[in-house]
Amino acid sequence: MKLSELGEDAVISRLTRSLCVDGRVKVRAGDDCAIVETDGQPQLLKTDCIIEGIHFLSDADPRWIGWKAMCRPISDIAAMGGMPLDALITLAIRPDAEFAWLKRVYGGVQAAARAYGLNLVGGETTKSPGPIFISVAMTGRAADSTFVLRSGGKAGDYLYVTGKLGGSIRRKHLRFRPRVAEAQWLVNRFSIHAMIDLSDGLASDLPRLARASKLGFEIDLSMLPLNRGVTVQNGLQDGEDYELLFAVAPSESIRLEKEWRAEFGKLPLTALGRLVEKGRTRFDGKGYDHFARG
Amino acid sequence: MKLSELGEDAVISRLTRSLCVDGRVKVRAGDDCAIVETDGQPQLLKTDCIIEGIHFLSDADPRWIGWKAMCRPISDIAAMGGMPLDALITLAIRPDAEFAWLKRVYGGVQAAARAYGLNLVGGETTKSPGPIFISVAMTGRAADSTFVLRSGGKAGDYLYVTGKLGGSIRRKHLRFRPRVAEAQWLVNRFSIHAMIDLSDGLASDLPRLARASKLGFEIDLSMLPLNRGVTVQNGLQDGEDYELLFAVAPSESIRLEKEWRAEFGKLPLTALGRLVEKGRTRFDGKGYDHFARG
Repeated sequence: MKLSELGEDAVISRLTRSLCVDGRVKVRAGDDCAIVETDGQPQLLKTDCIIEGIHFLSDADPRWIGWKAMCRPISDIAAMGGMPLDALITLAIRPDAEFAWLKRVYGGVQAAARAYGLNLVGGETTKSPGPIFISVAMTGRAADSTFVLRSGGKAGDYLYVTGKLGGSIRRKHLRFRPRVAEAQWLVNRFSIHAMIDLSDGLASDLPRLARASKLGFEIDLSMLPLNRGVTVQNGLQDGEDYELLFAVAPSESIRLEKEWRAEFGKLPLTALGRLVEKGRTRFDGKGYDHFARG
Repeated sequence: MKLSELGEDAVISRLTRSLCVDGRVKVRAGDDCAIVETDGQPQLLKTDCIIEGIHFLSDADPRWIGWKAMCRPISDIAAMGGMPLDALITLAIRPDAEFAWLKRVYGGVQAAARAYGLNLVGGETTKSPGPIFISVAMTGRAADSTFVLRSGGKAGDYLYVTGKLGGSIRRKHLRFRPRVAEAQWLVNRFSIHAMIDLSDGLASDLPRLARASKLGFEIDLSMLPLNRGVTVQNGLQDGEDYELLFAVAPSESIRLEKEWRAEFGKLPLTALGRLVEKGRTRFDGKGYDHFARG
């Protein structure tokens, strides 16, 4: 069977079903990051990649290409309530590429490292006969050693999303700012049961969170916080928003909304609906699937 | 200027000259792995990649492709005297690829994880319009928290190489076994001043070790331990040997050679020459350069 027939989630879940792990591994493939205990301290591990023609166009500003390569795994670490620590970059590129171009990519990589206070500790560069490929591996920590998983949602939890959705691919998909500070603020002040970052679109990522929590969900599509000029369909399916989607007990919602406004002012926080028992999901639309849309 | 005109080492050294790092980073880009202190314990971080058409051919056995993807960074960790701990894999592949093929790649990845006692904690898979790209990120540790760098060589040190060199690209380049046990044995029993794994060939990797140690070297090419049917030139330049090259005080050489034979029997250990003051290098030949050979 071809990968495109299976779809991304099925491919990854089948491949990672029986990974080789020992007791140090607390969370493995399937959440935003893996969690491994090292010297009694949990550490986040994440790797991600961007590819020319898929995640960025050939004529994109190289600084923003580097920025995006770093910010995608930073966003995953944020979604676990973690802080990024150290990063390694692997870059495959045609030998006839200009050094000046590559240096600008590294400029964007370093700008992201500075902006989010993480170390860039290594960089491999190798030749590629095909599109440019940039892979970033990252470690992360949590202040109090606790992380927010996708799987902790409870029936009745309210579902919130930060920022606005849709159309990001035409605007900010290279220049987005991972919600590290917002996620830290949330996990330090509230009991966030489950969280995920919206990389493939709400229509893909919300079902992932619900499935991991063994729950369904009810969403009011009229509540979707949309970017200007985009449709509900865009807000559900475009992806690349890199906003946070999280589940929190209804009892915390009033305080959350009030304190959020005081802290983050202009950045919207929107209650979209709630987690419900399995089988009661009310929602339609299909998100972006890396394989299904060959 | 094009990357191919600069060459791999110059590209990487220029790009990583001013990386963004804090005091936790003990060794950054430029050695086999980076070393970062986390909770007072030094940790090795490494990322590496293999690309279809460069590091493996399209018709190669997928199990051995997966094995090689894992074993390259394992070899780098071994060369620092470390033990691999956890790995993450990122795979970019055409959507029309067969799932069965990908599953066999993962079979090889898992076989390497089992053979070297490390956790495979995550796997990203994304579509690529070009060649298959497999990136592996890995963490590592040392039993006593000390690592062997490329830069610790002293003038007068003897240079040793394990195994045989040359022709690996036609034989074992997919199936090599990283020298983790041998490196552990060496660092636990002897004062290994500097070490590197031979991935690009002795003619590239020996100058890297010497340069990092701010020394030159004298090598007797007639001593090169060659695989059957290969020339000295092959032994110097073919690359993909993944043997260990290390520097040790002359006073340890007799005991080293004797105990090595007792421990590893058939696996050769060869004294090739020694490290000398800068500017006294005697050696010629050029190794493999990722960019120079477009």
